[in-house]
Amino acid sequence: MAAEPTAHELLRKHRPTLDQALEAIRTRAYWSPHPEHPKAYGENGSLDAAAGKAAFDALLGNRLDLADQPGIDDWVGGEVSPYGIELGVTYPHPDIDVLLPAMRAGQRAWREAGPELRAVVCLEILKRISDRTHQFAHAVMHTSGQAFMMAFQAGGPHAQDRGLEAVAYAYAEQVRTPEQAEWTKPQGKRDPLVLTKRFTAVPRGIGLVIGCNTFPTWNGYPGLFASLATGNAVLVKPHPRAVLPLALTVRIARDVLAEAGFDPNLVALAAERPGEGIAKTLALRPEIKIIDYTGSTAFGDWLETNAHQAQVYTEKAGVNTVIVHSTDDYQGMLSNLAFSLSLYSGQMCTTPQNLLIPRDGIATDQGHKSFDEVTADLARAVDGLLGDDARANALLGAIVNPDVKARLEAAAGLGEVALASREVAHPEFPGAVVRTPVIVKLDGAKPDDEAAYMSECFGPVSFAVAVDSAADAVELLRRTVREKGAMTVGAYTTDAATEQAVEEACLEEAAQLSLNLTGGVYVNQTAAFSDFHGSGGNPAANAALTDSAFVANRFRMVEVRREA
Amino acid sequence: MAAEPTAHELLRKHRPTLDQALEAIRTRAYWSPHPEHPKAYGENGSLDAAAGKAAFDALLGNRLDLADQPGIDDWVGGEVSPYGIELGVTYPHPDIDVLLPAMRAGQRAWREAGPELRAVVCLEILKRISDRTHQFAHAVMHTSGQAFMMAFQAGGPHAQDRGLEAVAYAYAEQVRTPEQAEWTKPQGKRDPLVLTKRFTAVPRGIGLVIGCNTFPTWNGYPGLFASLATGNAVLVKPHPRAVLPLALTVRIARDVLAEAGFDPNLVALAAERPGEGIAKTLALRPEIKIIDYTGSTAFGDWLETNAHQAQVYTEKAGVNTVIVHSTDDYQGMLSNLAFSLSLYSGQMCTTPQNLLIPRDGIATDQGHKSFDEVTADLARAVDGLLGDDARANALLGAIVNPDVKARLEAAAGLGEVALASREVAHPEFPGAVVRTPVIVKLDGAKPDDEAAYMSECFGPVSFAVAVDSAADAVELLRRTVREKGAMTVGAYTTDAATEQAVEEACLEEAAQLSLNLTGGVYVNQTAAFSDFHGSGGNPAANAALTDSAFVANRFRMVEVRREA
Repeated sequence: MAAEPTAHELLRKHRPTLDQALEAIRTRAYWSPHPEHPKAYGENGSLDAAAGKAAFDALLGNRLDLADQPGIDDWVGGEVSPYGIELGVTYPHPDIDVLLPAMRAGQRAWREAGPELRAVVCLEILKRISDRTHQFAHAVMHTSGQAFMMAFQAGGPHAQDRGLEAVAYAYAEQVRTPEQAEWTKPQGKRDPLVLTKRFTAVPRGIGLVIGCNTFPTWNGYPGLFASLATGNAVLVKPHPRAVLPLALTVRIARDVLAEAGFDPNLVALAAERPGEGIAKTLALRPEIKIIDYTGSTAFGDWLETNAHQAQVYTEKAGVNTVIVHSTDDYQGMLSNLAFSLSLYSGQMCTTPQNLLIPRDGIATDQGHKSFDEVTADLARAVDGLLGDDARANALLGAIVNPDVKARLEAAAGLGEVALASREVAHPEFPGAVVRTPVIVKLDGAKPDDEAAYMSECFGPVSFAVAVDSAADAVELLRRTVREKGAMTVGAYTTDAATEQAVEEACLEEAAQLSLNLTGGVYVNQTAAFSDFHGSGGNPAANAALTDSAFVANRFRMVEVRREA
Repeated sequence: MAAEPTAHELLRKHRPTLDQALEAIRTRAYWSPHPEHPKAYGENGSLDAAAGKAAFDALLGNRLDLADQPGIDDWVGGEVSPYGIELGVTYPHPDIDVLLPAMRAGQRAWREAGPELRAVVCLEILKRISDRTHQFAHAVMHTSGQAFMMAFQAGGPHAQDRGLEAVAYAYAEQVRTPEQAEWTKPQGKRDPLVLTKRFTAVPRGIGLVIGCNTFPTWNGYPGLFASLATGNAVLVKPHPRAVLPLALTVRIARDVLAEAGFDPNLVALAAERPGEGIAKTLALRPEIKIIDYTGSTAFGDWLETNAHQAQVYTEKAGVNTVIVHSTDDYQGMLSNLAFSLSLYSGQMCTTPQNLLIPRDGIATDQGHKSFDEVTADLARAVDGLLGDDARANALLGAIVNPDVKARLEAAAGLGEVALASREVAHPEFPGAVVRTPVIVKLDGAKPDDEAAYMSECFGPVSFAVAVDSAADAVELLRRTVREKGAMTVGAYTTDAATEQAVEEACLEEAAQLSLNLTGGVYVNQTAAFSDFHGSGGNPAANAALTDSAFVANRFRMVEVRREA
């Protein structure tokens, strides 16, 4: 149990933020306590740009400071930045027969702390992470390949927002049932039956977070904080190419837990040797009761099918569609789409892949545009956006791994190339693989083309798919979501009937829809506290970030009743 | 969409009840809108005892009025009451390739009705069921074998309470996210980003309710109403021996839906031929997205392992334990336990099976009692409770099926019999199989005995298990819950340390605990709106009735966002 002064201090410090987060998830208006601008950091204990860079540099070539973890049988590493540098950081490899039992030792005290204290301890962890946002930005950049500014924002404040959102949902869910109730049942003329009931949120056990390469913190924090806030211990198994951001997170969480009087082993890291596949072993351990996974459909499906002892939350592959039917802001549409296709080289689970465009062209504020004109204009918009190498580098980041590069190179052979990919030199990191996106024209009616557009081609590849009509587009959208899943759907249309048809398809297939975005919000971006990331209702993901279904089954409510 | 006057009328009529239910699940104080006393019925459109009996009698030997269901390819039946009479009612057997598509036809309008209208339509269904409580009482009695008063209460108001509770949770969960949000993100000196977001609760598809023999309505209503209230269609597949209560429910639901302007096929019945095993076929159909099941562990595990396309909620077998350590109300304890063991011949998933009693005896307000004295006194208490045949019949009901009878008969061979079972003649139904419970002494330390007490022996069989100490009892409790699951745990102790140890075991193994019950509340009874039925955290059940985890994943929230 935490020392009282510590608990009191944490409550005083973080309860107002928790309350704001609870209000935000209720209204879903804009809110974030985590500044997006790099210059906002450097005061009140947070690292500024130089200090963050120095803190990152100090990690390189060293063992990460996790020697206090129980059951370390080796130190492993080998991350190579998509920007070409070897990180040289090593991490604890666990003897899981030692580590897992050790992680359970502190669970009683963590359970007894209750939902509110757990929440503010989680908020303190997030605060410490936030203070090191500049350090995290470099760690995320050099594991995911994101450009610095994106690594800073998506890997920093946006990820922290998603973590905080999960804490808020977890807290709200646990306190929906009162801690105690008096139950008095009338018995006519006899004395009433009177019971006192006590309700306690109890954890399931150990949560396993299986991290991904592209968004280690953003995709990792929701599950991590949802499980921790509901009283579970959490074992973090990062992607072998993106260990550092989550290892830093674990280090901070352990420090905060210990300072608050809890067992630091409530959070631990499991790094692995190349090709070891430790996730598969961990996922079937009886101690693991919750699994959060982001990655391939194959392994996600395997987890859902085999890890029966656990609650399994997966985000897998999908095929995202944008229907381009008509617009009253042709330039805005092109700019918006060009940005969406370019951001982080399309290496987001939310990036559009298939642009469904009527083969007879579309109506716009600049007159009718043929299919070829639309694709050519979009290609020009991307070219214009990325024409300057400095801006291209700032937007594209680096190709995260050789598989993505191979897919990009193969894509040009799938059809007529509307926009060819080009290499971009990186001024600071000559080893970075930076490529502009490719756009390939396909015909929605050709079976050969279908094989391409109905598969996820993760990376900077999109398909301009010619369709017969708006109805044809909606039908293909519907089939794509149902069969392949989708994290996002976009549509451009000025026609009310088409808009309604797209909406209905998205409602029936449970896909999140962005309509007619022409400004500074993009289909591939979601904001914590307001947007749901995924729906959990189509094959791309079995959970949404974050709703109450994401947290409500991570704990159980145990009742003890006695006569009053 | 419902005609406005109907919707308005339903809201006016039921919104206050919904609000009371929402308040009850928040405070978990006593509340019920459904009278427990048979004499409370007969006014305001409800059937009194005679009318209810007549309505039941009118069903016998006839086709149930469900001929309007699509895809009926046969009429099947064959229920024989545990009281010996053949019901002779027949029900639609579905051509599921016709029925399942027909059930989807009305889903859009049902989705568009929204959470509030769906909730009050569900409340109208419950109101019509409540009005027919006397009819349902006979239907439940003559399928489950419950005695009339229990069939009346557990099959009537208590089941309706559980249904209403599920509606309340479902409603609360769907309206946690607002229907619409304005999202305004500041952009420094530039114009803010402004989006309008609309959030819609969308159903998963068709929910399948697989009913059980012993509590067709009580165990069936939570899943049925949770799925329906969240916008899904619901296909009800009753236990072949307990079709009538759920078939009546389906009939009423279809009537109410149609009157409210919705497609009656949103709720349908699937009866089956003897040995057909239609549940297995239905459970794997792609249209079935939710399954609620009460029954054997074998089939529950099969569903959890194989029905990957569905959310699966199961209540399976368990081994319920009562630790008898010490008491300051020996007579109260014996009376309370005697009642728990006798009610409905122990054919409740919540009935205690293993009574763990220290072999050195226990401390009581009447002095030290040896193990043999406790078991003999408990046997006498049961005998006293059931000494009068009329009272025995009113409490025991009938043995539900031959398997239970066979287990009861075999139990006497498992150890020394502390209380022998006896036959009780039923004055009205000579064909009824009525038996008093058997209590068998076992030794917790003997491996041969362990095979008996570590298996569920469903029916009027309990084991007085000698244990070495309180610590030994707690350890055995813990192991039993972990390995076999438990719907309930009871304990009698005046020792604070023992009480704490039992509580800790229940918190760690996620079992619901009743402490020192000596009055008119029994370990095997739970009250809707206040008590959780099961925890969902041990092998006896993967869900609790009802919490938000039970409802939150039956729908998904789809967001449509556009620039403001």
